[in-house]
Amino acid sequence: MDTVTLEDARTVIAAAEAKAAEIGQPMNIAVADAGGNLVSHVRMDGAWIGSIDISINKAFTSRAFDVATKDLGDNSQPNQQFYGIHASNHGRIMIFAGGLPLRRNGQVVGSIGVSGGSGEQDQTVAEAGAAALK
Amino acid sequence: MDTVTLEDARTVIAAAEAKAAEIGQPMNIAVADAGGNLVSHVRMDGAWIGSIDISINKAFTSRAFDVATKDLGDNSQPNQQFYGIHASNHGRIMIFAGGLPLRRNGQVVGSIGVSGGSGEQDQTVAEAGAAALK
Amino acid sequence: MDTVTLEDARTVIAAAEAKAAEIGQPMNIAVADAGGNLVSHVRMDGAWIGSIDISINKAFTSRAFDVATKDLGDNSQPNQQFYGIHASNHGRIMIFAGGLPLRRNGQVVGSIGVSGGSGEQDQTVAEAGAAALK
Amino acid sequence: MDTVTLEDARTVIAAAEAKAAEIGQPMNIAVADAGGNLVSHVRMDGAWIGSIDISINKAFTSRAFDVATKDLGDNSQPNQQFYGIHASNHGRIMIFAGGLPLRRNGQVVGSIGVSGGSGEQDQTVAEAGAAALK
Repeated sequence: MDTVTLEDARTVIAAAEAKAAEIGQPMNIAVADAGGNLVSHVRMDGAWIGSIDISINKAFTSRAFDVATKDLGDNSQPNQQFYGIHASNHGRIMIFAGGLPLRRNGQVVGSIGVSGGSGEQDQTVAEAGAAALK
Repeated sequence: MDTVTLEDARTVIAAAEAKAAEIGQPMNIAVADAGGNLVSHVRMDGAWIGSIDISINKAFTSRAFDVATKDLGDNSQPNQQFYGIHASNHGRIMIFAGGLPLRRNGQVVGSIGVSGGSGEQDQTVAEAGAAALK
Repeated sequence: MDTVTLEDARTVIAAAEAKAAEIGQPMNIAVADAGGNLVSHVRMDGAWIGSIDISINKAFTSRAFDVATKDLGDNSQPNQQFYGIHASNHGRIMIFAGGLPLRRNGQVVGSIGVSGGSGEQDQTVAEAGAAALK
Repeated sequence: MDTVTLEDARTVIAAAEAKAAEIGQPMNIAVADAGGNLVSHVRMDGAWIGSIDISINKAFTSRAFDVATKDLGDNSQPNQQFYGIHASNHGRIMIFAGGLPLRRNGQVVGSIGVSGGSGEQDQTVAEAGAAALK
């Protein structure tokens, strides 16, 4: 099973941090491995403390279902097919933007979760992080 | 990092209590510090026991995201950007009116959470408390 | 059902705070009512943040079983009759010194929980608080 | 209230990682701030996944009570003054070696938590991390 290493996680986090600094919004950034387990987390100075848990769990969610949390969210609104999924997994399922699978050679090898700004900002920073994985 | 003291918390709570008495609705009132940790809580005689937890967690939420819980709530309705956030942080995120950051010199130094009446009443009492911080 | 009022709780807390100041150890102090539900909590400046939860739950425990938490603790050591009771009530049972029932006219009307120092210090402060109830 | 920055946390983690590499035992290393909230976490390649939570909660515990988790543990054995404390704070209290307060100018500004080896190894790595804070 290919999976992200700590070095991979640091590469992804560095790219995400650079993007967060560029847009001027401090973030919590987390990377999980192929097993959905946390590899590394950073809270940038001034980032929300409520977003620690959210960033880690966005990463968990993205690997748990191999999906962007934003897309899972679209399917989890009232009257949609996964409505209520946020009650599962002991509160670890996050259904709003900022979580993305990390892929290498077409295979999911881990995930990134970002929290600290608007949904759009979180998504932008997560995309910058995910794009940096080699 | 500036933070509220117990004396600050008592000043805030006294002002909130006075407003609650004025509008005739007994309340639970909680104040958290800059780290989101509880400094003090009071339950006025006759106030709801289900609101103990809510007041403490409204205070936590307001510091966790430096936001009024009412505003967070607007962004957490179905199809809004933070829908589902109430599942995070082990059930501590409150997304309805009554929680406010406490600011000193433009900096968030803690928060207040009020629960015991209608959303509008909770908000009114929280605002009276927050305004009293020196 | 006779029960402590917010005014009673403040009387108890003031006496406990004075004792904590006298012995030079900042404390978390909580008072619960006849229903075991929190009436008021204060964290003195510099008191441990891990003791917020403990003080509130020592108060809960003392009313839950109408017992001093120190005495419950003696009965909850390995090979004693209540060993394992700390796993009940969703982690709210505290089995070490610092929690006491509050009595009026021989009847338990609430409880106090103190946390922030050694077991002996917590107990001393709780006793000072309990003695102040009128 | 002085608190650790992300840069501080990285300095501490780097020193801890170097020590873990030196003794040949991969570790989870976490740093919390003055409010007990996570600043950063790393899991070295090959470190136990069960130790993610433990490292984060050792850091929480050390700041929650301004104590080494090893010393808290000595006081939390059966028949000792804090026996049962591990049931408090929703399962976040760790009572074995590997957590240390971080001090600057004699003041606790955060904490480190290490998990991944024997108690002695965890302690050694935590000490190396704590010593690196400037």
